[in-house]
Amino acid sequence: MFQAHLKKLVDSTDGAAAGLLMGFDGIAVDSYAPATSGTALDINTIGMEYSFLLSQVKKAAESLEMGGVHEVSIRTERLIVVMRIINHEYFVALAIDRDGNFGKGRYLLRLIAPKLHAELS
Amino acid sequence: MFQAHLKKLVDSTDGAAAGLLMGFDGIAVDSYAPATSGTALDINTIGMEYSFLLSQVKKAAESLEMGGVHEVSIRTERLIVVMRIINHEYFVALAIDRDGNFGKGRYLLRLIAPKLHAELS
Repeated sequence: MFQAHLKKLVDSTDGAAAGLLMGFDGIAVDSYAPATSGTALDINTIGMEYSFLLSQVKKAAESLEMGGVHEVSIRTERLIVVMRIINHEYFVALAIDRDGNFGKGRYLLRLIAPKLHAELS
Repeated sequence: MFQAHLKKLVDSTDGAAAGLLMGFDGIAVDSYAPATSGTALDINTIGMEYSFLLSQVKKAAESLEMGGVHEVSIRTERLIVVMRIINHEYFVALAIDRDGNFGKGRYLLRLIAPKLHAELS
C-alpha cells in the first residue's frame, strides 16, 4: 500500500530523507522516513507549507496556458524537495539531501505516481 | 552583458524557448527568445506570475529552516520552467520545451548566475 511505495521510493534514492503522500488541503495520507535519517526533518510540515504553494503554481500554469503541472522541485541550501502531482487532490513529495540523487528520485516519483493514483481511486 | 548571457543560455540548451532576468517585484531586466521559438511564449508574463510565488517559496524555506533557495523548477504538460535565484532581488529563468534538455539548462543556469550577480552589483 502507500507505505510500501513510499518506503521503496525513499530507500531506493541515495540521500533521500523522507517521502510523503498528501492532499492539496495539507492533510497527509501517509509518510515514511528511515530511522537512520540524519536530518531532524519534518516532511509533514514541509508538505503543509508547500501544498498551498503547489495549488498556486497549478493555478498560475493554467492561466498561462502551460497545461497541467506534473512536477515542482525546490532546491535549497540544505535540501531538495521534489513534488509530483498525482491528481487534482493529491501529490507525492520526496525530500533529498543536497548531495543526494535528484535524478533517481524524480525517476522513481514518475514511476510510483500512477500506482498511487490507482490505489487512491 | 545580460543579453549575451541569456542568449548563450538559450542557444546552448536543446529545446530552450526563452531566457529571462527579472526582479522579485516582477519587473524584467532583460529577456531573450530566439526568432525560431515555436511556442508563442511570453516569458515575461510567466516570470511575472511566478516571481511572487518564488518569494513565497523563499519565505516558506526560511521558516522551515531549509536554508536559502537556490533553484525552483516547474514541469508542466507543455513546458519546463527553471528559475535560479541570483540574490535577494533578482532571479534568472529558463523556459524549455517539455522534451528539451533540462539537465543542460540547469547546469548552464548555475554557471551564469554568479556572472549575472557580478554584473548586477
